[in-house]
Amino acid sequence: MVIIGELINASRKTIAAHIEKQDAEAIRKIAREQFEAGVDYIDVNAGTFVGKEADYIKWLVTQVQAVVAAPCCLDSPDPAVIEAGLSVHQGTPMINSISLEKDRYDQLLPLVAGTDFKVVALCMSNAGMPKTVDDRLAIAEQLVNGLLQNHVKIDNIYVDPLVQPLSVNQDFGKEFLNSIDKIMTTFKGIHTVCGLSNISYGLPNRQLLNQLFMVMAIERGLDAAIVDPLDQRMMANIAAAEALTGKDAYCMNYLKGHRSGKFKLS
Amino acid sequence: MVIIGELINASRKTIAAHIEKQDAEAIRKIAREQFEAGVDYIDVNAGTFVGKEADYIKWLVTQVQAVVAAPCCLDSPDPAVIEAGLSVHQGTPMINSISLEKDRYDQLLPLVAGTDFKVVALCMSNAGMPKTVDDRLAIAEQLVNGLLQNHVKIDNIYVDPLVQPLSVNQDFGKEFLNSIDKIMTTFKGIHTVCGLSNISYGLPNRQLLNQLFMVMAIERGLDAAIVDPLDQRMMANIAAAEALTGKDAYCMNYLKGHRSGKFKLS
Repeated sequence: MVIIGELINASRKTIAAHIEKQDAEAIRKIAREQFEAGVDYIDVNAGTFVGKEADYIKWLVTQVQAVVAAPCCLDSPDPAVIEAGLSVHQGTPMINSISLEKDRYDQLLPLVAGTDFKVVALCMSNAGMPKTVDDRLAIAEQLVNGLLQNHVKIDNIYVDPLVQPLSVNQDFGKEFLNSIDKIMTTFKGIHTVCGLSNISYGLPNRQLLNQLFMVMAIERGLDAAIVDPLDQRMMANIAAAEALTGKDAYCMNYLKGHRSGKFKLS
Repeated sequence: MVIIGELINASRKTIAAHIEKQDAEAIRKIAREQFEAGVDYIDVNAGTFVGKEADYIKWLVTQVQAVVAAPCCLDSPDPAVIEAGLSVHQGTPMINSISLEKDRYDQLLPLVAGTDFKVVALCMSNAGMPKTVDDRLAIAEQLVNGLLQNHVKIDNIYVDPLVQPLSVNQDFGKEFLNSIDKIMTTFKGIHTVCGLSNISYGLPNRQLLNQLFMVMAIERGLDAAIVDPLDQRMMANIAAAEALTGKDAYCMNYLKGHRSGKFKLS
């Protein structure tokens, strides 16, 4: 399971404040905590700062990589911002994300073409948000084919089928889960990823719903996730889900997590 | 989701002690608590009392039905014990369980033939415990066909694919989950049920593993379960899993559970 730590995101008020004050130590601390919790990538997002987003993402990448030996997940719909992040990034980043929205697709594709970057391919198009499995498959197919034709390896593609809130339509959970399964079986060697907290929008006990939806998605084949790695129950659930579905040889990773005391469950 | 409360089982030491002392009030209290937690059936099992099991199951059924308006799940491999339970049971019970083990099958089949009883069909044969999906399907097919030919309606059949410990084989979880899916799609209108705590045998944080495995099984189609209904996180997980998979119209049941204060999560 590839874990992308989601905490350094300007849509969170404390992070926005740290960015505005250019409080390097605060950002570095959150990078360190996520790294110690076991993430593979650290997401950096400065999306709320219109006009300053490019400068701020450069600063974020620099602060994060000053203290941890992990690549970043450069998180912006704006190709210029991604390019700014790339200009200071060390190692092989993840790009979050390309989609089938025309401008975004046309401008991001040349940036990732022929590279070894990991690329999140978001199932969204100019026609709007997908609802059904078929909607998602149609978008995924065009995105995946476009990336392959531009020499992005299938193993570097992470399709995000786009979670939508259960409170809007009771079938949105099921359609998403079936999409994970369908994408993983249709495109051999590909990956799926998501930030799944949208599922619980408007419902009580959001954390419980997010944690359980993660477990179901892993059961259906999800192999990467954008999460809060400091949520110990979420991390325990991910390890347990991998063990329960035969993806953790001899349950070694689950047992290791347990022994390290990382699984505080209450 | 059909919930069968598992607590009145002589394999639990406190229950065995209550049975031995014929402490009617203690048994009635546990029956009441499970009923109030929302169970559909109350399992009664006196299996550890060799020679006295038939008398004790009669006593258990009588105590339970003296205080709650729920049918029992008569739990014994011994047809004589099931018959004893039936002799005092009011309403339509669940029989737990018939299997393909020859003696058990031959003696239990006449008891359930042509009745409206719910019947748990356990995927076990004289050849031993099933391991793969195919093993389970082969047993299920013979059991289901035998029951149908003996005028048990498909809607009254609950196939238990038999959970086996992950600590014995890391693929046992996956094989079980795929079996649930396969049974539900192969036999239209049938049900699946299980007591799933075996999955976590020999591993740490058993409750976590049991709760998450339940969530995965519901996602794959499980529609009945033998559980501790006083485990509030388990009950919250079941309600959340049904909402997340589109089985709870407008999330009404989930919202009702939340509002009633039943979901104590820590």
